[in-house]
Amino acid sequence: MTPINQAPLPVFLKAAAERVEARLKVALAPSVPAADTLFAAMQYGALGPGKRLRPALVYACAALIQEQHFDPARCDSAAAAMECIHAYSLIHDDLPAMDDDDLRRGRATCHIAFDEASAILAGDALQTLAFELLLDSEADARLKIRLMQELAAGSGARGMVSGQAIDLAAVNHQLDIAQLEQMHRLKTGALIRASARIGALLGGANEVQLAAVSRYAEALGLAFQVQDDILDVTADTETLGKTQGADAARNKPTYVSLLGLDEARRKLAGLHREALDALQAVRGDTALLEQLAEYVANRSH
Amino acid sequence: MTPINQAPLPVFLKAAAERVEARLKVALAPSVPAADTLFAAMQYGALGPGKRLRPALVYACAALIQEQHFDPARCDSAAAAMECIHAYSLIHDDLPAMDDDDLRRGRATCHIAFDEASAILAGDALQTLAFELLLDSEADARLKIRLMQELAAGSGARGMVSGQAIDLAAVNHQLDIAQLEQMHRLKTGALIRASARIGALLGGANEVQLAAVSRYAEALGLAFQVQDDILDVTADTETLGKTQGADAARNKPTYVSLLGLDEARRKLAGLHREALDALQAVRGDTALLEQLAEYVANRSH
Repeated sequence: MTPINQAPLPVFLKAAAERVEARLKVALAPSVPAADTLFAAMQYGALGPGKRLRPALVYACAALIQEQHFDPARCDSAAAAMECIHAYSLIHDDLPAMDDDDLRRGRATCHIAFDEASAILAGDALQTLAFELLLDSEADARLKIRLMQELAAGSGARGMVSGQAIDLAAVNHQLDIAQLEQMHRLKTGALIRASARIGALLGGANEVQLAAVSRYAEALGLAFQVQDDILDVTADTETLGKTQGADAARNKPTYVSLLGLDEARRKLAGLHREALDALQAVRGDTALLEQLAEYVANRSH
Repeated sequence: MTPINQAPLPVFLKAAAERVEARLKVALAPSVPAADTLFAAMQYGALGPGKRLRPALVYACAALIQEQHFDPARCDSAAAAMECIHAYSLIHDDLPAMDDDDLRRGRATCHIAFDEASAILAGDALQTLAFELLLDSEADARLKIRLMQELAAGSGARGMVSGQAIDLAAVNHQLDIAQLEQMHRLKTGALIRASARIGALLGGANEVQLAAVSRYAEALGLAFQVQDDILDVTADTETLGKTQGADAARNKPTYVSLLGLDEARRKLAGLHREALDALQAVRGDTALLEQLAEYVANRSH
């Protein structure tokens, strides 16, 4: 059987998604009978349709460093941890007091499918579960500590959550392009960067490799966001799986609203190049990460 | 100067509170300028008035094990971590979609003082910060891992959060006394137990000591809750710092509603005795923990 990191991107992405979903199913098995609804809401949030981009980055960056010694099983818990944080952030972001979204990836959001209280608690418990998964990952104590530092820095008040706070404060306010970029670097970039670094650390990366992977992931994370803003105005609701034009309607600043569509597309191409450039500093087979950058920059949903 | 663990309980509690608040102030210093409101909401939630019972348990249980070698500075980060989890749970529990409380400890709750979105995010970030504080605690990598396992087990879907989920599901439903007890063991007991165990582990407890401290904390946690239910019907709003009769008005089952006031008081006395009994298994100076049990059982707010 071809190792998953040597398969074409769609095969790799499918294998990575299957691995992480299997790990999540075990972690989300209900274990407190009277709290069945809580576990159901957690499963709904973490196991619904999704690209599993963060888990894919964990596997792909570990594979880049380990090459023929790559063992995806060593990454399963860490990959699942990143998806738990991502899922918790989406559940909370969709709440009425936040973005107030009813639709996500073509389905009812968690607080619509369950209720607001269950959605708040499911998000809370998914965050805890992410740390539990890293505690359970195949690594020695020192490496686990390092992985958890990356997770906490990427997801907490110095990472994702402050990005979300800046985003909320920006509704009906004019951000300039630097402020918009800072917001995205925190809101989505920090966790994408943490996913790549955690994968690289699991693979045994040295500091040079870690820096290269970080630069790659930072460019990839911003590229993802620029493409998101482009799709918000160019794709239809059905393809997108969420309401088309939602950001524009909410009067949120976007790359397209600040730069115009053409300049946003040039920005995307520049970030795509930057991601590929970053990989030059790493010896090893960078084909998978190159394809992943291509996929992120050119995705249609 | 008298070591804090040999001072009378009020002096110890004050010293413990001052230590943990100093640690929290450092951890909560705003570090993302554009997200000032997030840090302000986190500070509001974590540094408002409170008994700091969980931090006190960390210090007191470490002191019990270490005796004359006890150094409170080694416990500061862990004590602050427990207060962060407690504060996050209160912020989220008070939200309109949950208990919908406007008043907590005599002040506006976080979503009233700020707004709902800020309160959700402040709670989220305080949870992450708890793990960051344990990562930063004075312990080797293996001990940190152990502390984080205790924190995650006590606070996540197998601990505090499932207790909260059971509590919400119980509104307008009849729980029997066993179900009520399971709910409290999870909702408040699990974090109180984790605080005691984390203190004992920082002190270098063996398994016998750890089991004794756990038994003590389980009884203490339930005693705290029974006294809470008694105070809900016997104290006035001003003394309580929250709305008197709120649980009864919300039609939530309580020890008093299920057992009556006299039987609830007998239950409290039994739990107080159980806490003291548990301490018999530990050599060392148990005076502080005995006083703490007395304080919890007889508190007036």
